Amino acid sequence: MFKLHPTLEKDSLPIAEVDGLAIRLIDDARFPWVLIVPMVEDVSELHDLPDDTYRAAMDMARRLGEGMKSAFGADKINTAAIGNMVAQLHIHVVARTRDDAAWPGPVWGAGEMVPLDPDEAARRIDAFRAALAAP
Amino acid sequence: MFKLHPTLEKDSLPIAEVDGLAIRLIDDARFPWVLIVPMVEDVSELHDLPDDTYRAAMDMARRLGEGMKSAFGADKINTAAIGNMVAQLHIHVVARTRDDAAWPGPVWGAGEMVPLDPDEAARRIDAFRAALAAP
Repeated sequence: MFKLHPTLEKDSLPIAEVDGLAIRLIDDARFPWVLIVPMVEDVSELHDLPDDTYRAAMDMARRLGEGMKSAFGADKINTAAIGNMVAQLHIHVVARTRDDAAWPGPVWGAGEMVPLDPDEAARRIDAFRAALAAP
Repeated sequence: MFKLHPTLEKDSLPIAEVDGLAIRLIDDARFPWVLIVPMVEDVSELHDLPDDTYRAAMDMARRLGEGMKSAFGADKINTAAIGNMVAQLHIHVVARTRDDAAWPGPVWGAGEMVPLDPDEAARRIDAFRAALAAP
């Protein structure tokens, strides 16, 4: 039975569940940043995913990256499965800009998270839901 | 005409070219670390890759990650397309261990690279070539 890791739950807000993937917004105002969490029990590595879930996750990463690049006027999309701190497999998709708080370094381990204003969080979540509902 | 970015060329050694992908060993003794560089001109984002090249790159990432986890006794594989410094699309696959030089932080931006001893580089390259030639 899949259960989201408590750290991922604490650090992010639910956007949607699509194709066996939980899509979540990281609660950090510094970067537009989402997680793709395959809803598969006890998986920590990309190569441990079943083929169809791997393809669904990789297709979602590409789709979210493309949408976020345009929606947030990003200079670069960063896509990564790291998991050194939280082993439960999760894929980061982050919209980066040259004037953001960590550029050109990675966002992982960069300073402290700044929680989103609830209105801004709701606005972002609605925009992601609308984009995911589009064909 | 695809041409490898000079920074990627300087920081890595050629392993093989497979399925339109250049596979390269990062010249850093601290981490077993390879790059997958799709040999497509002027592409910086995963979502800009043609579908077939995207699938080939993602399949290679999974295959290399699985092989490296076992070959290097890794605790975690880190897979990422970042590209904030070098825009030419390149996908990192890094075998991480709890006692490595950057754990649990990411390897990007962590200290200075330590060039591989040429014998060790040749040994790693041979091992990757043998693994890639296997069915």
